[in-house]
Amino acid sequence: MSAVIETAALRSAVRAAAAVTERRNSIPILGCVRVRADADGVAITATDMDISITTRAPVQTAGELDVAVPAGRLTRVLTALDTGTITLTPKGKDLEFTAGETTGGLYGFPVEDIPVVSADFPKARTFTMPADALRAVLANTLIAVSTEETRYYLNGVYLHGRETHAGTRALTGVATNGHVMSQQDAPLPPAASEAFPVGPAAGYILPRKSAGLLLRMLSTESGDRVEVAIDSNRTKVRFRLADDTELISRFIDGTFPDYERVVPRNFTGNAKVGRRDLLAALRRVSAMCEGKHRHVLLRFDGTRLGVMTKGEEGGHAYTAIPTVSTHPIEIGVNAAYLRTLLAASDAEVTVISYSDHANPLLLQGESEPALRQVIMPVRI
Amino acid sequence: MSAVIETAALRSAVRAAAAVTERRNSIPILGCVRVRADADGVAITATDMDISITTRAPVQTAGELDVAVPAGRLTRVLTALDTGTITLTPKGKDLEFTAGETTGGLYGFPVEDIPVVSADFPKARTFTMPADALRAVLANTLIAVSTEETRYYLNGVYLHGRETHAGTRALTGVATNGHVMSQQDAPLPPAASEAFPVGPAAGYILPRKSAGLLLRMLSTESGDRVEVAIDSNRTKVRFRLADDTELISRFIDGTFPDYERVVPRNFTGNAKVGRRDLLAALRRVSAMCEGKHRHVLLRFDGTRLGVMTKGEEGGHAYTAIPTVSTHPIEIGVNAAYLRTLLAASDAEVTVISYSDHANPLLLQGESEPALRQVIMPVRI
Repeated sequence: MSAVIETAALRSAVRAAAAVTERRNSIPILGCVRVRADADGVAITATDMDISITTRAPVQTAGELDVAVPAGRLTRVLTALDTGTITLTPKGKDLEFTAGETTGGLYGFPVEDIPVVSADFPKARTFTMPADALRAVLANTLIAVSTEETRYYLNGVYLHGRETHAGTRALTGVATNGHVMSQQDAPLPPAASEAFPVGPAAGYILPRKSAGLLLRMLSTESGDRVEVAIDSNRTKVRFRLADDTELISRFIDGTFPDYERVVPRNFTGNAKVGRRDLLAALRRVSAMCEGKHRHVLLRFDGTRLGVMTKGEEGGHAYTAIPTVSTHPIEIGVNAAYLRTLLAASDAEVTVISYSDHANPLLLQGESEPALRQVIMPVRI
Repeated sequence: MSAVIETAALRSAVRAAAAVTERRNSIPILGCVRVRADADGVAITATDMDISITTRAPVQTAGELDVAVPAGRLTRVLTALDTGTITLTPKGKDLEFTAGETTGGLYGFPVEDIPVVSADFPKARTFTMPADALRAVLANTLIAVSTEETRYYLNGVYLHGRETHAGTRALTGVATNGHVMSQQDAPLPPAASEAFPVGPAAGYILPRKSAGLLLRMLSTESGDRVEVAIDSNRTKVRFRLADDTELISRFIDGTFPDYERVVPRNFTGNAKVGRRDLLAALRRVSAMCEGKHRHVLLRFDGTRLGVMTKGEEGGHAYTAIPTVSTHPIEIGVNAAYLRTLLAASDAEVTVISYSDHANPLLLQGESEPALRQVIMPVRI
């Protein structure tokens, strides 16, 4: 009955699955991980009812067990143990363990009480894509997701297939909080046409938490391909990584707004700035634009971009960086949002396109058209 | 008027002084640092009315200024600036600065509003001692200081001169929270006889916050000697480090209890354990003795020390380490306190002396008699 597993491997698997559980949880069973072992290995599953994560670890000696124990406590047990192996033995609904000089047990919960997030994922709606491309879509849009619960349809990343202006087909992620918007394209794999049909309003809103957990899973060494599957009702998605871990998530049931309306198209000028230069300049004046007054004035005047605060926040500051701008103007923006956008980009040179102080600015990497960022101006 | 200072040096000096200010402060002036520059350099002072810290930085170009500006904001300005130098210029009560491409100003407060913590420190009550010795006295007793405000006289480290049982004179620190007690001796310098007269009840209670700040100052590279001075009223102390930074603190106005009564003297047995082994054992069972139930049972039985939890906390655990004990017994203790005591010691081998399950245990390093630790048993 007992399964023998390398402690470090089990620890990683439990930690990765337990990430979906909420710290402060009034429903004990949702704070549990399900630990199942059979001849193939050990599988760890955890869920918050909307998302479920399953991770796996190899067994050194195969055993049979299926228990549900508190995720936090199991993680702490595994963290506190020395390296080596751990022997897991079921005892009713409890889980007994032996590791070197240490023996112990964790009180368990009935396995059947753990909610199952599952669905039917048809083969036709299943495709694979590069992990890097999915990572970019998530990382560069998550920063713009709204946390305002009243506009729940903005609390996620809108994933959809679309035809770009260049005529290529993209799997696009978009997110906005009303102050900034970020849109990242990835090439749409041909096999994804059934899952992500190109066309208006044919997309899905992936909840912020799911996107964040998936991004975290993609950041570990989990292979370079991801399998994506949309379920038959188009209400859930399954991401399966090359290391066989998987995340299933419900989509947000709502309609994402027609974001293309927000993207500015007519400009009176633009400026090319070193992305890191502008980040450094914003950092230098940051002590005077924090708290309530996070606004900075951007003064474009040909060869210089001046960045200044207006002295509302306990002091004032001015700094400047070189730029090439085509039209002199002063525009106020929220410094924190601008820093977030710039930090999400990889571009060496960012092109900031503007029209006047009342219209949004468009940021694009000079050689990185797949990422478009929009920031609303503020009146200073 | 302007002073030119290396940004990094000023940053360190401001940070070190600002450590005394409280984050959430309803009195703005107590959140300020005073920045004074003259031909000798720049001095930074901050206070919370009970403690005052003064730090110094060299000037590259001497200037004259004396302003009070918010500590947090100045720190953030200095942190955000690139390396290089910063030019400080007073402007009324405000502080203007220039650093490379960046200019700015911080709104100041009237310098005379900053409370001054000072006193007369007679030469006869001034002596120097090794920084290492003072560091040990503070570090090894701070862990036992009570945070219960009702027993305010336990909210600090009791520093006093005493004659040890070995007949030497010691500068001793003691702290207790009622559950543990820790006592660390340092050699009493002959010149300290006026400041720390040897005798009953001739000591001072250094507040926890002062001890913590001083420990932090001693942990940086600040030289190997410390000058200690007691003021003429014996209500304040000044510590001056070799790098010329200083901390002045009020003592707690109260009477420290006669702690010698608590130190157990009669034992039925003792056990020698590897200090790190016991720490590791406590760590291995830690997941089952956290939260409300932090108790572990120590089972001494000749060649083994068993460490076990009683299954109140979501599970149970047992582990064991080798030991040499003279008398078999089971004693319950608070695991968190025991870990704290062991972590504060440097000993390879710790001698745990015990009598029965109702009386305190004494912990001493086998070759480290200067540190004595007492832990109360708990009923399990």
